[in-house]
Amino acid sequence: MTDHPKDGQAGPHHVVVIGAGFGGLQTVRSLKGAGLRITLIDQRNHHLFQPLLYQVATTILSPSEIAWPVRDLMEPRPDVTTLLATVTGIRDGKVILSEGEPVAYDTLVIATGSRHSYFGRDEWAEFAPGLKSLEDATLIRRRILLAFERAEREADPARRAALLTFAIVGGGPTGVELAGIIAELAQKLRPQFRNIDTAASRILLIEAGSRLLAAFDPKLSDYAAKSLERRGVELRFGAPVTECREDGIDIGGTFLPCQTRIWAAGVAASPASDWLQIKGDRAGRVPVLGDLTAPGHPEVFVIGDTATVPAWEGKPVPGVAPAAKQQGAYVARVIRARQSGRAAPPDFKYRHLGDLATIGKRSAVIQYGRLRMRGFLAWWVWGIAHIYFLIGARSRATVAWNWLWNHVRGRSAVRLITHSPKGTDGGQIQD
Amino acid sequence: MTDHPKDGQAGPHHVVVIGAGFGGLQTVRSLKGAGLRITLIDQRNHHLFQPLLYQVATTILSPSEIAWPVRDLMEPRPDVTTLLATVTGIRDGKVILSEGEPVAYDTLVIATGSRHSYFGRDEWAEFAPGLKSLEDATLIRRRILLAFERAEREADPARRAALLTFAIVGGGPTGVELAGIIAELAQKLRPQFRNIDTAASRILLIEAGSRLLAAFDPKLSDYAAKSLERRGVELRFGAPVTECREDGIDIGGTFLPCQTRIWAAGVAASPASDWLQIKGDRAGRVPVLGDLTAPGHPEVFVIGDTATVPAWEGKPVPGVAPAAKQQGAYVARVIRARQSGRAAPPDFKYRHLGDLATIGKRSAVIQYGRLRMRGFLAWWVWGIAHIYFLIGARSRATVAWNWLWNHVRGRSAVRLITHSPKGTDGGQIQD
Repeated sequence: MTDHPKDGQAGPHHVVVIGAGFGGLQTVRSLKGAGLRITLIDQRNHHLFQPLLYQVATTILSPSEIAWPVRDLMEPRPDVTTLLATVTGIRDGKVILSEGEPVAYDTLVIATGSRHSYFGRDEWAEFAPGLKSLEDATLIRRRILLAFERAEREADPARRAALLTFAIVGGGPTGVELAGIIAELAQKLRPQFRNIDTAASRILLIEAGSRLLAAFDPKLSDYAAKSLERRGVELRFGAPVTECREDGIDIGGTFLPCQTRIWAAGVAASPASDWLQIKGDRAGRVPVLGDLTAPGHPEVFVIGDTATVPAWEGKPVPGVAPAAKQQGAYVARVIRARQSGRAAPPDFKYRHLGDLATIGKRSAVIQYGRLRMRGFLAWWVWGIAHIYFLIGARSRATVAWNWLWNHVRGRSAVRLITHSPKGTDGGQIQD
Repeated sequence: MTDHPKDGQAGPHHVVVIGAGFGGLQTVRSLKGAGLRITLIDQRNHHLFQPLLYQVATTILSPSEIAWPVRDLMEPRPDVTTLLATVTGIRDGKVILSEGEPVAYDTLVIATGSRHSYFGRDEWAEFAPGLKSLEDATLIRRRILLAFERAEREADPARRAALLTFAIVGGGPTGVELAGIIAELAQKLRPQFRNIDTAASRILLIEAGSRLLAAFDPKLSDYAAKSLERRGVELRFGAPVTECREDGIDIGGTFLPCQTRIWAAGVAASPASDWLQIKGDRAGRVPVLGDLTAPGHPEVFVIGDTATVPAWEGKPVPGVAPAAKQQGAYVARVIRARQSGRAAPPDFKYRHLGDLATIGKRSAVIQYGRLRMRGFLAWWVWGIAHIYFLIGARSRATVAWNWLWNHVRGRSAVRLITHSPKGTDGGQIQD
C-alpha cells in the first residue's frame, strides 16, 4: 500500500499514531529526528484547535482560523506518512481501516479523543448536537442563525417564542462559553431585525449539578453565574434533562419548547477500549498503566481523552489539551528510550496548568495554582494564552485581527448559513 | 407577517427585491433615502462575491472572505426588511414563499441570477457540480482534496490514475481559472504526499468550441491556452461532453476515467420566466423591454443574469457583475422617477468595463476597450480591481493579506475537508 518498507522487510521501527489532535500531534512532533518511520492516521484532514470551537459555533471565528491540514503540518517531516482514513479496529498488530489495506505497526499510539455522552440516549444527538468538530460548529451556527431568521418570518407568538429560545445543556466551560456568547449575539443582532426583538431571546443554561464550572473554585463558579445572569442567561440547576425532542426538552419533568438545543454535557471516549478488548471506565476510557501503555499491550500507548490514568496527585488526569500534549511528549520519550535501549523514564506525571473559561466576549475566569482571576483582565490573559497556543504566525495574526475587529467594530462577518449539499438541515431554506 | 403597514393600509410604496446578488443589492443601495418600504428576499443569508468563488473551490480563500450576511449589510437601513426565504412563484401581485405568508408588492425587482446549464442532462449535476454558491465551492474543494487523499491510499495504478485526473468542462473564464489553479495546487502539494506524485496529475480543460475565452480577443485566448499548457493543463477543443458518469466522462465518444469533474459550461436563468408566464430565451432569460420591465408587467423589473436585453450596441448585455450593478442602479432611477412623477429616464444602456480572467496565481488576461494586457502585470491589475470591489475594509484587508501570504509563503491554510453532517459526500471518510 505504501512505498515504505513492507512488514517483514528491513526498515526502521514503524510507529502508527491514530488521531491528529493535541496528543497525537505532540507525539509525532516529539519523535522528530528519532529515525523512526511514522504513520499518522486521522479521519479528518485537519488538526483542530478545539478550545476555540465555540467561537466558530457563535460566528466569531471562521473554520479555517482554528484548523490546519495535517498534511500541511507534516510537510517538513519526510519520516511521516499522513493518511486520511477511518479506523474500524485493531487486530494482530494491524490497524484496520474502513477502506484500503490494514496498516501494520511496531508501536501504536491511540489518541482518538472523546465525544459527548448522551447517557445512553444517543438519539438525542440529532436534536441537541454536541460541539467536537468543525461540522458540529457550523451546524450549530446554522441552527442559531436560522432560528432568528425563522422568527423574523413567524406570525404565531408561541412558535416565535420557541424559535427565540436557546437551551444549552451542561454547565462546564463549553456550556458557559456558549451561553455567554449567544446572549451577546442576541443583543448585537437587534438592529438587524424588523419584526422581532432578538434581545428578548431566552437563553437557558441547564446544569444537573448545583453549580457552574465544577472544576473551579466555588467563588469563580459564583462569579460566572452572576456574569451570565447579568447578560440575561437563565440558569437551571439540580434538574437533569429527561427528554429531548424536535420541539423542545424536558427539564426535571417540565417541558420547555425551544428550537435550538446544544449539548455540552458528558464525555464518552472513542471506541479504543473495544478495539483493544479492554474494559473501559464509566466514560469508556482505557485504564492505562503508569507508562501510558494499555494493560497487556506494552507496544500500545493510549493517551489524551481516550485514556484514564491517576497521575495527578493520585487523581485522574483531566481531559484537557495540555494533558494530552504532556502525554504525547511522554510517550515519545518512552519510545525513544526503548529504541536506544535506555531505561524507561519514570511513570507519567501530570502538571496542571490551570483552568480557564470565558464568559461572553470581555470576561473570563482563571485559576492557576492558588491564583484566582476574573473579569476583563482575565479575558486578556485567556486571549493571549490562546493566541500563543495557535499554530503558526498566520493563524495568530488572523485570530488576533478578528478579535480586535470584533472589539472595535462590534460586528462580525462570519454569520454565514451554509447548507449541506443535499440539504439535511435547515428545513425548506434550500436550493 | 410584518410590523410594517399591511396591504390596503396607508404607507409608503412597497418595493420587493428578490435576490441579494450584485443586481438586487445595487437596486436597494440606489434606493437609499427614497422614502420607500423595501423588502429584500434571498434564499441564502449572504451576498456572495461570485468572481472569487473559484478561489474558495481551490483552497486560496475561505468562504467568509467572499460572503457577507445580507442582514449585516442592511443594518443601517431601517427602510429595508431582509427575509431569508425561497420564492416559489408570483401571483396576483404577491410573491409566494415556500414557507410563511405571501409578500404583496407595489413594485417588484427580480434579480435571481442564473445556474449552470447541463443542456437537458440535469442528472449530470451530481457527477460534475457547477460553481455558483459557497456550498458548490466547498463541495468542489472537498472533492479535489479527497481525490489526492484517496490516491495516497490506493494501490491499483489504474484507479490511482483516475483519482489523479481532473476534468473541467467549459473554457470560459471560470474554467480557465479553475484549471490554472488546480494545476498549481497539484504542483504545490507534491512535498506533502509520500506514495503519489501529485505533480503528475492530469488536468483537462474541455471546450466544445474552438478556443478558450470566446469573449476575448483571439490573441488573448491563444495566450491563455499557452499559459495553461505550460502549467501542464491538457486542452481539448471541438468535442462536446456526451456522457457524464460517476467514474468519468465521454468526450466526443471517448471515455476518460476521472474521479473529479467540474462543470463550468452553459447558463440557465432562474425560473423567473415561469413565474411571470413569459417565454424566456434559449437560456430561460426573460426578454425585458428597454426600461428593464417585463413585457405586460410595467411594475415588474427583471435584471442581471435573469434578463436579456439588447442594450449593448444592439447586442445582448453580458451576464457579468458590472452589468447587473448598472441595471440595479438604472431600475432605482426609474422607480424614483415614477414615485416623484418625473419623466422616466431614457432606455437602459450598458457600458462595458472590459473582460478579465486569471490564469493560475500570477498571470491574467485583460481587455478594456482597445487595451490588451496579459501576464503578471495584468494579474496585479486584476487583483487590485477585485479587492477594490469587495465590500468593506475588513474583507479587503483580509483578502489582500491572504493573497500576499500565498505569494510569499506559497502555502495555504484553508485546505479543509469539511463534510455535510449526514455525510452525503466523501464516501466512507465519515464519522
